[in-house]
Amino acid sequence: MKNSIVTTIDEIFNPRSIAVTGVSAKSNRLGNLLLYSFMDMGFKGKLYAVNSNEEEVMGIKCIPSVGAIDGPVDLVIISVHPSRVPALVDDCIAKGVKAAVVFSSGFREKGDEGGKTEELLVQRAREGGMRIIGPNCMGLYSPSSGLSFFPGMPKEEGKTAFLSQSGSLANMLGISAGERGIRFSRMISVGNAADLDMNDFLEYLESDEKTELITLYLEGIADGRRFLDLAARISPRKPILIWKVGRTEGGRESAASHTGSLSGSEEIWKAAIRQAGLIAVENLQELGGFITAFQNPHPPQGNRVAILSGPGGIAVSTADACYEAGLKLASLSDDSRKELSKFVPEFGASVANPVDLSLSASFDHGMYPRATAICGADENVDMIVEFIPILHREVAEGLLETQAKIKKPIAVVTPLEFASLETSAAKFFGTISREELSAILKRMYDAGISVHSTEQEAAKALSSLLSYTRFRKSRLGA
Amino acid sequence: MKNSIVTTIDEIFNPRSIAVTGVSAKSNRLGNLLLYSFMDMGFKGKLYAVNSNEEEVMGIKCIPSVGAIDGPVDLVIISVHPSRVPALVDDCIAKGVKAAVVFSSGFREKGDEGGKTEELLVQRAREGGMRIIGPNCMGLYSPSSGLSFFPGMPKEEGKTAFLSQSGSLANMLGISAGERGIRFSRMISVGNAADLDMNDFLEYLESDEKTELITLYLEGIADGRRFLDLAARISPRKPILIWKVGRTEGGRESAASHTGSLSGSEEIWKAAIRQAGLIAVENLQELGGFITAFQNPHPPQGNRVAILSGPGGIAVSTADACYEAGLKLASLSDDSRKELSKFVPEFGASVANPVDLSLSASFDHGMYPRATAICGADENVDMIVEFIPILHREVAEGLLETQAKIKKPIAVVTPLEFASLETSAAKFFGTISREELSAILKRMYDAGISVHSTEQEAAKALSSLLSYTRFRKSRLGA
Repeated sequence: MKNSIVTTIDEIFNPRSIAVTGVSAKSNRLGNLLLYSFMDMGFKGKLYAVNSNEEEVMGIKCIPSVGAIDGPVDLVIISVHPSRVPALVDDCIAKGVKAAVVFSSGFREKGDEGGKTEELLVQRAREGGMRIIGPNCMGLYSPSSGLSFFPGMPKEEGKTAFLSQSGSLANMLGISAGERGIRFSRMISVGNAADLDMNDFLEYLESDEKTELITLYLEGIADGRRFLDLAARISPRKPILIWKVGRTEGGRESAASHTGSLSGSEEIWKAAIRQAGLIAVENLQELGGFITAFQNPHPPQGNRVAILSGPGGIAVSTADACYEAGLKLASLSDDSRKELSKFVPEFGASVANPVDLSLSASFDHGMYPRATAICGADENVDMIVEFIPILHREVAEGLLETQAKIKKPIAVVTPLEFASLETSAAKFFGTISREELSAILKRMYDAGISVHSTEQEAAKALSSLLSYTRFRKSRLGA
Repeated sequence: MKNSIVTTIDEIFNPRSIAVTGVSAKSNRLGNLLLYSFMDMGFKGKLYAVNSNEEEVMGIKCIPSVGAIDGPVDLVIISVHPSRVPALVDDCIAKGVKAAVVFSSGFREKGDEGGKTEELLVQRAREGGMRIIGPNCMGLYSPSSGLSFFPGMPKEEGKTAFLSQSGSLANMLGISAGERGIRFSRMISVGNAADLDMNDFLEYLESDEKTELITLYLEGIADGRRFLDLAARISPRKPILIWKVGRTEGGRESAASHTGSLSGSEEIWKAAIRQAGLIAVENLQELGGFITAFQNPHPPQGNRVAILSGPGGIAVSTADACYEAGLKLASLSDDSRKELSKFVPEFGASVANPVDLSLSASFDHGMYPRATAICGADENVDMIVEFIPILHREVAEGLLETQAKIKKPIAVVTPLEFASLETSAAKFFGTISREELSAILKRMYDAGISVHSTEQEAAKALSSLLSYTRFRKSRLGA
């Protein structure tokens, strides 16, 4: 059974041909957006546009129906009024289509009647040998096979998968994280998950060689037992970040009307997440930051943090954030302090931990890397958090060189919008283009340097990474 | 005494002439940065550069010493080696200078000896009739009088003051918040606060007509009793946001070496902050978001929230965030639902609260404003939180028009970096320049629409605004 589902999904991820329904040169822009997404991603197989009334959409000749397509069709994107979905599914089955992404909504999330239609749909598809993703979903993103569900998603491949009950979140994460250099292996928006569900895709990701880190947005799940068994089995080898919503009364009500999900008791989820070694996050921004931390190839060995900062105020706040997350300040060795004293200014600065590099570090781009090398070599230090007001090319390159030697987790807190600002400050400090910034950030993550929006996020991410490292060791003994 | 300190500080904020020391065409770039900041801000009075060895710095003729300046000097910026500060202070006193900003560090924060030098300095200044800001500080920013301490600070004036023990934080907040349309009346970086301290400036801000909202970054304070008395007196009329660090063992150690501050017990602070009606924030990003919420001219009347969102997933997460912050979902009236049904899609959307506008809202820029008008007019709704993936000009303008009618707090959660992205998605959704975005955001804040990075921040900000409104009513009875 396991091999079967993995093989099935692998085929769905690698279609030779795709047909998009619900497109129109005149009105229905959602179908067009989906069609354009495949073009934008450079899908290499055959791409068909289905519309019986029009000649052409976005330069692609329209074919009146799925059945009228000449040659095999592996994947169909269904984006039509829900009342037309059953007939279209029948067409697909008759044509021998392997799988359909049902973008259309109006099923289980609308109440009992919608739920029944959904069940019938799945029954028909199963009898006909076709699998369904959705309904009420965005579908699949996979840069290696040219699949996408939104224009502007990164074409470059990463090692993180995102499995989500919300479709919009998937495209938002893809684009926003893409801007900051985060890349994905796969994204799956399952929506109501009537046929292929979160568990099926989770099992697929377990054996997917392109995926090393799994991230989830979850509202509720039908077979919670299987989910937790799977998660507990996978998490020691591939960390799983989970954004679980429906934690409160209001969230549970909202989830029911969004994807018809039963969120379950918060207490049971909390305990289950802990037991299975999953890592909880609570919003899109935090998810992005945690992904960069969990790509880290150098697991932390303990909780002693060295803090480096130009702005002294943020250094103090970062110390608070570390203690509140269960980390503690490392005592730098006398040697480290001596080395730091060689270039850290005598005044308005500090060579004790937190190491306050002062405003000088904004002028001298070698200061952060040099201080990082010293703290990283100190055997009293397990990890480093640094606040960098403006992330310059030279600072980033210096940190990359340093990290290649020290191999301890480095979490950088920086307001990314600063780096590419064109203000009068750039006269003194320089600037960097968004494209360059994104490319450097990607290299930083791969090397084990994570990037965060706030000191609290950085401290929580490192603390979670440490807990996960210990969990993994307890399970795998290594 | 009160009038005396207010008058003194008001004079310092409006100097007729400024001399900047520690400048050099060759090396000392920190002094140059400070000199350039006044030029950048367009200081209208006389600006002098002091250097005995050079002819000219940044186009300004150098004068060998403060004493050699022809005409009165109101404010001197001292940015020299700490060993040279006492003599320079003497020069200033002899010249009849009214106040000096001592940027130089190397005093109390360096231990007992530095502390003694600092005390002597203050004693000398007081005997000579001169006031000191600092040492170990950035000084003053005040766009109305052309004062600044960093290039690129906004030239436009706002109604929020920032009073800080950390200098770098002040310039970072000024520039980053400036980018997102937040403006300030004054910023004061007091550093070690050896002479004029946090309390003096707080008292000044109490009567400052340009300031309606006070924000503080605080590590510790010598006269905690006076601070809390002042804060409790001011806060019912001008809300006070406080970023108090040194909350943990690690933070307290760090604060001592940063500005020589004693942070005090966390429990005492927590109780005091609550009692004085202050609003706690914990990082730069949150401070920015809370400032936009507390500029709100329309205080909330209760805790019933309407949530509007295109992406359904974020709507669920926002519901959780609201409940976790003590707010609850409003029950929309039948009339409201009926009105919403007229344009919210039947499928993949919802007219119950959270109102799920679906992906359609990314195409039809009138949907957010229209839904906001309906929810805002509903008497079951006290406040609105909306998640907007891409903040378009038309969406923002529509919200501004709507807010003029409904006059209830609106908190927008949006990833601002999205709005001005130049990706393939812009083909479908359009884009906006950073300058335009910043200008529209400013108008939104003034109208009572706050903008936040995460749903948790928005919910916390609205919840704090509600608590503050109740506190204010209990004190002022209105």
